[in-house]
Amino acid sequence: MARVVVDVMLKPEILDPQGQAVQRALPRLGFQGISDVRQGKRFELEVDGPVDDAALARIHEMAETFLANTVIEDFVVKVEDSTVGAQK
Amino acid sequence: MARVVVDVMLKPEILDPQGQAVQRALPRLGFQGISDVRQGKRFELEVDGPVDDAALARIHEMAETFLANTVIEDFVVKVEDSTVGAQK
Repeated sequence: MARVVVDVMLKPEILDPQGQAVQRALPRLGFQGISDVRQGKRFELEVDGPVDDAALARIHEMAETFLANTVIEDFVVKVEDSTVGAQK
Repeated sequence: MARVVVDVMLKPEILDPQGQAVQRALPRLGFQGISDVRQGKRFELEVDGPVDDAALARIHEMAETFLANTVIEDFVVKVEDSTVGAQK
């Protein structure tokens, strides 16, 4: 079993009010030096069986048709080492 | 200017209805072989100046106090190569 990550972000030319809200809040909260924030989505998929080219092609198609709205969003598919389970 | 990414995911023991909805929809849409989906948030921060240990410590604190709810969420701070701009 392997983990595949799909990161979905708004395209650079699309306004991101969520990210802007975060960016404008940071100085008020005492954090300087962040000039831009973009907020997107991260999907972690647990894949049964091997993550070969066919599986990746299927996941790419899934991301394109279902996880991302490709009119306004870009996505990246990444295979994550399944042994790296510890987060934080 | 460098890009720092903060990934925020629900802790493994916290129920993720969003991810479950995605996971249950996939077979209906013709995608088999995905046993679990977790959905989280991805923040891309553009940092002014160098991303040294002090800046990373500040971003870590920011993520802990503001971007993530550490009662129910884990987060990971990653420095992304600023030359890798092309997505998709």
